Amino acid sequence: MKANGLIVEYNPLHNGHVYHIQQAQKLTGSDCTIAVMSGNFTQRGEPAILDKFSRTRAALSSGVDLVVELPFLYAVQHADLFAKGAVSILDALKVEHLVFGSENGTIESFHQALKERIKNQAAFESILKQQLDKGLSYPEANRTAYELAGISSTLDLSSPNNILGFAYLQAAESLYTPMQVDTIRRIQADYHEQSITGPIASATSIRSAWQDEKTQEVKAAVPIKTFELLETEELHSWEAYFPLLRYLILTRPAETLRQIHGMDEGLEYRFKKYIHQSLNFQQFLSLIKTKRYTWTRLQRVCVHILSNTQKHIINEHLNGAACPYIRILGMTKTGQAYLSSRKKQLDVPLYTQLKDGMHPVADLELQAADAYYSILSPEIAAASRRQEISPPIFE
Amino acid sequence: MKANGLIVEYNPLHNGHVYHIQQAQKLTGSDCTIAVMSGNFTQRGEPAILDKFSRTRAALSSGVDLVVELPFLYAVQHADLFAKGAVSILDALKVEHLVFGSENGTIESFHQALKERIKNQAAFESILKQQLDKGLSYPEANRTAYELAGISSTLDLSSPNNILGFAYLQAAESLYTPMQVDTIRRIQADYHEQSITGPIASATSIRSAWQDEKTQEVKAAVPIKTFELLETEELHSWEAYFPLLRYLILTRPAETLRQIHGMDEGLEYRFKKYIHQSLNFQQFLSLIKTKRYTWTRLQRVCVHILSNTQKHIINEHLNGAACPYIRILGMTKTGQAYLSSRKKQLDVPLYTQLKDGMHPVADLELQAADAYYSILSPEIAAASRRQEISPPIFE
Repeated sequence: MKANGLIVEYNPLHNGHVYHIQQAQKLTGSDCTIAVMSGNFTQRGEPAILDKFSRTRAALSSGVDLVVELPFLYAVQHADLFAKGAVSILDALKVEHLVFGSENGTIESFHQALKERIKNQAAFESILKQQLDKGLSYPEANRTAYELAGISSTLDLSSPNNILGFAYLQAAESLYTPMQVDTIRRIQADYHEQSITGPIASATSIRSAWQDEKTQEVKAAVPIKTFELLETEELHSWEAYFPLLRYLILTRPAETLRQIHGMDEGLEYRFKKYIHQSLNFQQFLSLIKTKRYTWTRLQRVCVHILSNTQKHIINEHLNGAACPYIRILGMTKTGQAYLSSRKKQLDVPLYTQLKDGMHPVADLELQAADAYYSILSPEIAAASRRQEISPPIFE
Repeated sequence: MKANGLIVEYNPLHNGHVYHIQQAQKLTGSDCTIAVMSGNFTQRGEPAILDKFSRTRAALSSGVDLVVELPFLYAVQHADLFAKGAVSILDALKVEHLVFGSENGTIESFHQALKERIKNQAAFESILKQQLDKGLSYPEANRTAYELAGISSTLDLSSPNNILGFAYLQAAESLYTPMQVDTIRRIQADYHEQSITGPIASATSIRSAWQDEKTQEVKAAVPIKTFELLETEELHSWEAYFPLLRYLILTRPAETLRQIHGMDEGLEYRFKKYIHQSLNFQQFLSLIKTKRYTWTRLQRVCVHILSNTQKHIINEHLNGAACPYIRILGMTKTGQAYLSSRKKQLDVPLYTQLKDGMHPVADLELQAADAYYSILSPEIAAASRRQEISPPIFE
């Protein structure tokens, strides 16, 4: 059996994702599609609209054979760490191909950029540092460094999916994986696109349309399974967590907030200063945002406050290391057959159920899950928590 | 001017409290009634049904002339510390009389018991230690020690208001205050009484009747002001805080919970063990309760989790010390005149408005207030928080 791997968030799974699943399968001719998916919180620092189990069901009903969790440790991080975690999981699963969607769509451009990046490493890093010292945000400084070091000649490294794809390729190189990396062109115009204009729309525009009760527009842009889940499951958004976030920022002293991952350079005082006058999450973020601190970075810090993710756990377990285990969220018969065929070759433990105390990274996962479920009624929260320690979904 | 002092919670203020106010005034012949009142959380470890400002308004409209806050530091503690804080405030305010309500009703019995207590100090303490080592709860061990040391011959020290009154007398003795302590007999049968049976009912039974929507029964047992406040203000109960408490116990590691005041003897593991299966506060407390840990003690620990009250702040500031400041919550013209007449004699700073960073004990007060308001909408929470840093209520 041959497998191809995708790195996904499915927040929520839409027609563009289904197209990606199908095209990747066609391109690679593999028998099994494996998706490494972020759990309850996404890379941009948001609670996923549907929990990991619902999104796993949507994936399995749309052509994915095996859904593996990208641990929270890697998922709510900047692109390089996110990529490192995800690629190391696919590598550990002995996947033959990694296929990512990008604005560019040609893998040669990525390889070319990577070559240039390696050649101009010293210049790149020195410019990056300069720009950061000037007070630019990390993405801005990064973009400028690519440009000034003459790296992005063939690849536009200001497009979000090009950035992520480039990070995947870098991670694959650094892991010396035999996995072949390929890309397909995304057919949707813009990742940040705010409104639905046809059957292919961005996840952002779908979430926003759902919130505005534009049910029919959403229906046209997602598979029926996603639509059903949106209608029946508990939905999550930052605003629902705002009272809890507010409580935490108000009642924890600055020294406690400073222990939170990402709370650097005195940011804790900024958080405490502006929380009193903030009546919702959007307002709070607008107040604390600066040129240096991007919205995304601040959202990630907020997720880490909620999940009580402390610097020491990140320092002990992240450090650019490969993912220490593989956690199966769900599979089809095909996915199960693939796992059986590879089981003996795996160098990393395969977890079909989490339990407390099994691994510090898994404990952090459960802690983040408890934070995610905390806005639900105690009954539903307890039931969701039980899913975390139950066997994978089999469909 | 002559003042008499009361130590109160008014949770909520009812006809029995009004009787106490009137009788104390009659007994002492004073011109001004001062109430030291717990803030948003009560001695038994519960969020007060109405916030401190509403309860202040009720007090001022029922014959109290000056409402002073018993800081959170002292309020949510066992009887001796609660008494120490409250009596030291009345002493600092140069109040002539302290009048408490008790089941016994005769101050001589209290003085007699105190004499016996001092005489049998050694025996008392050794029996107390023995009983605690046997696994008894503090109140149980205390009661047994009084009995076995032959102290409670004239005073029943198993009645809750006798216990509190005795603690007031002890605190007054230890402070060498010139304040005269007196008692009046409570006309209500039982502090723990569960249902309303007439115009005088316990605060517990009133809260419970209000929750059961027995509006007319409550109306008969409280002044009109209390009734109006119950109808119009936001009400607080443990159940509303349970999702937050659950979140905190789940997402904070045992080492973090261990830093919370009252979290001793490995109690944190018991909290973490039983929280998963608990769907409401009552159920959780029933699960963690043992012979050694009384319901009240566990409720207080829960308040300290919510308010993030750490052991180190308690150790630094409590230590049996007198209250470091006097905070005015509200006053009438008479109360204001009394304060003016005594202002020059006060040895302790008088705060009419709190602000951040003014005193560690005041900072803890604001932190507890933020926890208390956290279940409200961000708009109402922010407005309530502003009241904390506004001038006193003047009525």
